[in-house]
Amino acid sequence: MDPTTPQTACFEAGIKFGSLYHQFAGTPVSPDSADSLARAMEEAIENQPHCESVTVTVREDALREAIAESGADYTELTGRFIEVSMTVDYEGVVVETSMAMDEGYPLMQVDDVAAE
Amino acid sequence: MDPTTPQTACFEAGIKFGSLYHQFAGTPVSPDSADSLARAMEEAIENQPHCESVTVTVREDALREAIAESGADYTELTGRFIEVSMTVDYEGVVVETSMAMDEGYPLMQVDDVAAE
Amino acid sequence: MDPTTPQTACFEAGIKFGSLYHQFAGTPVSPDSADSLARAMEEAIENQPHCESVTVTVREDALREAIAESGADYTELTGRFIEVSMTVDYEGVVVETSMAMDEGYPLMQVDDVAAE
Amino acid sequence: MDPTTPQTACFEAGIKFGSLYHQFAGTPVSPDSADSLARAMEEAIENQPHCESVTVTVREDALREAIAESGADYTELTGRFIEVSMTVDYEGVVVETSMAMDEGYPLMQVDDVAAE
Repeated sequence: MDPTTPQTACFEAGIKFGSLYHQFAGTPVSPDSADSLARAMEEAIENQPHCESVTVTVREDALREAIAESGADYTELTGRFIEVSMTVDYEGVVVETSMAMDEGYPLMQVDDVAAE
Repeated sequence: MDPTTPQTACFEAGIKFGSLYHQFAGTPVSPDSADSLARAMEEAIENQPHCESVTVTVREDALREAIAESGADYTELTGRFIEVSMTVDYEGVVVETSMAMDEGYPLMQVDDVAAE
Repeated sequence: MDPTTPQTACFEAGIKFGSLYHQFAGTPVSPDSADSLARAMEEAIENQPHCESVTVTVREDALREAIAESGADYTELTGRFIEVSMTVDYEGVVVETSMAMDEGYPLMQVDDVAAE
Repeated sequence: MDPTTPQTACFEAGIKFGSLYHQFAGTPVSPDSADSLARAMEEAIENQPHCESVTVTVREDALREAIAESGADYTELTGRFIEVSMTVDYEGVVVETSMAMDEGYPLMQVDDVAAE
């Protein structure tokens, strides 16, 4: 069957998550540069269609721990260093999504689907 | 409200599309290297959870035209050089999606949502 | 032969350019989000070893023109939208490099190599 | 001072390494998809100017170990899963470069610079 509007809204939300993750994974990051990277990620993805807002929080403790372990003074961005929440509005259907660590793995999920 | 299973299936499908696009956008590509890139894109994204199959077709005419215009012998991958179809199966809900050019813009869309 | 110190300094400078370009190529960008992306690019690459400073300038005219042509309200980052200058200091050899448009193509080059 | 031809050759070699690494870092990879990714990396970077040849070898043991630890059936590409060797020829100066693990960190280096 053709997708419903809420299904398409969820598809759009997924696109934004995959984009955010795979555009920026691998970026050199340190505690000092974490804020500028988080802002760029938010504003870049907010450009995409139907994307109302993106919030990226760097898990600075996890970042400092990884850097201490490696002996370098920076590391590469991966999912365990960030938490993300995102709101997509597709034709009046508002989808709330988030990414957070779940049993050691960055889990992306739909938290809420609401028609206006 | 919590997402339904079909909505989550569509979210998962969107993640795969955003991943595929933003992981590989910008890759140097020529007619000679198009096939290996297409195979790598397919197999990389098929690793992701719930992803049954991915087919990437390079639009070789568009690629050759862009290369001829630029005067270089390769270009960078962007959406107008590929067509993609993808099947996601999330808890028995099968979502068919595709990306193709639509009025000069690569449009990602859900083509079908089917419960088993 | 083994590389000289200035040759290795130039190799290190090249690594930074390739990293900057291919990490961020494809990022959704608009005039409103250009500044945060430029700052993130600078700070991300400055994390890399021997990298003293990075300056990224968005060519806003080129960006606005591409957006106007496409009919969308953002585009994807590629070399024609940015100018970059970068200083690498490897064991006292300072290498100045830059990227700018040259006959329609983003040219990365070494501008100066100076031993202290 | 302006760069010498061998210095520019080393700069060009560095660009290819940074490109290869940051284009493909973060790609979903498993033992089954490792070969297609390695081929795509080689052929993509061989498109770049002055790049004679690229060889990417996946360190399958490291890959299997990371996957076993994570409990997933794939992981994301990072430097510790690959070894790379590359030959650049810039105006007759042949530069041999490689990337391999060195004390737990992927080290990119110039192995040889030879004028014809």
